[in-house]
Amino acid sequence: MAAAGWPGCAQGLKGVILDMCGVLYDSGEGDGVAIPGSVEAVQRLKQSDLQLRFCTNETQASRDRFVAKLRRLGFDISVKEVFSPAPAAVSVLKERGLRPHLLVYDGLLPEFEGVDQTDPNCVVIGDAAEKFSYENLNDAFRVLMALDKPVLFSLGQGRYYKETDGLKLDVGVYMKALEFACDVKAEVIGKPSPMFFRSVLSDMGIKPHEALMIGDDLVNDVGGAQSCGMKGVQVRTGKYRPSDESHASVRADGTVDHLSQAVDLILGHRGQ
Amino acid sequence: MAAAGWPGCAQGLKGVILDMCGVLYDSGEGDGVAIPGSVEAVQRLKQSDLQLRFCTNETQASRDRFVAKLRRLGFDISVKEVFSPAPAAVSVLKERGLRPHLLVYDGLLPEFEGVDQTDPNCVVIGDAAEKFSYENLNDAFRVLMALDKPVLFSLGQGRYYKETDGLKLDVGVYMKALEFACDVKAEVIGKPSPMFFRSVLSDMGIKPHEALMIGDDLVNDVGGAQSCGMKGVQVRTGKYRPSDESHASVRADGTVDHLSQAVDLILGHRGQ
Repeated sequence: MAAAGWPGCAQGLKGVILDMCGVLYDSGEGDGVAIPGSVEAVQRLKQSDLQLRFCTNETQASRDRFVAKLRRLGFDISVKEVFSPAPAAVSVLKERGLRPHLLVYDGLLPEFEGVDQTDPNCVVIGDAAEKFSYENLNDAFRVLMALDKPVLFSLGQGRYYKETDGLKLDVGVYMKALEFACDVKAEVIGKPSPMFFRSVLSDMGIKPHEALMIGDDLVNDVGGAQSCGMKGVQVRTGKYRPSDESHASVRADGTVDHLSQAVDLILGHRGQ
Repeated sequence: MAAAGWPGCAQGLKGVILDMCGVLYDSGEGDGVAIPGSVEAVQRLKQSDLQLRFCTNETQASRDRFVAKLRRLGFDISVKEVFSPAPAAVSVLKERGLRPHLLVYDGLLPEFEGVDQTDPNCVVIGDAAEKFSYENLNDAFRVLMALDKPVLFSLGQGRYYKETDGLKLDVGVYMKALEFACDVKAEVIGKPSPMFFRSVLSDMGIKPHEALMIGDDLVNDVGGAQSCGMKGVQVRTGKYRPSDESHASVRADGTVDHLSQAVDLILGHRGQ
């Protein structure tokens, strides 16, 4: 299919932010599989004069384990280049002196080592999958109800994602459940939170209009980036649906078949 | 405390509808305990010229088992006097030719015997408690997502209830979760649905203004009854909270300390 929205997207660029699942690889059994051309596309961006960061709402594994998986798939990625909700949450908790009750996947727990979890005064939920039992959700609910002012953090707000064996409920569904149970509004950490995108821009030392976000999720990647003043490009891989191109409220600055095509257009425009 | 709103409540009455948990008894270990005076209050209503029905959002047990429990607590109640969401749901399913995927407590399953559950084209959720596992909720979600037009029924929409060991998440929380996941609006069967109250009035053969609902839940009992044109009285037992008496949008027609006091006022006004 034709790429739309270029070369406007590529003008004045200093940095690129890549979503990971659905852009670099498809998840599933074991490590999943790299999307064709994406390993080379990352390599070409790294060899250019552009800055590059990775931004994911992945909360089932610590960044160490997550990056190790991507390296096994062939990607040249290091932990310090990857932004995910858990470390951002740790910063917020420490800044505000909050002690979390955690309802997250076991694989994410190492990210919260060093955070005081005694006598909790807030709840943090991630994509806990099978750990979202009635008992665990009820425990989180009781912690919130025992607080004068319940504070609930949600690491992302996705509805569902797709694995090789079918659709899976994501953390946003359980966020809505606890919001209704406790009559409280959750604070979302991760995409599409502007705070999250701004932390990535700050790390690169560039302004929003100098950055381009590439993702497969129209609302969380493209819409989130745009609401921060960045350009947002959607790939036709991962959870992309053709109906995204006529979405009622979010319109991508560009749409491409896959990451490799986006990199062709970006670097071609720069003569690199 | 003084009773408020009388004798206006008792004028022109032909029938009384009683909520059960929190009005007749408090739930907890085993069968729970009868609220003092309530066994006798039911007996006095039965000996009067008023019609009497019972109306509950209980969905953890079939009516047979639920009524057997109340009889063990001393209440003179029969199954045909009790209205609960599951039989109402069965009527709706049969009327509309729907085949449910059930996510309910095992004890409720007998109510759905005789309902075709092959190749489901809708989902019915009740207060499933421990059965609300990630896997079971995900299964219900996949059934809904596979339908062209997802149809979700929720047996009640409560946020939580109280048992002797603490607060417990109720079905409404999981209804909200599935609504968000599938971008669908659930149809609620049970209180405060007007259809549910009208079926009770129809069974008594009386008009809304001739009936009085007595419950401990300001929104689902009192507000629901009032929106059908009935009078609604709240008891200060069960889940009653003092803040209910200054609620922003629902005001009871009368408030009494307990069921026994309500019956004193109703029958005293009728000279019985």
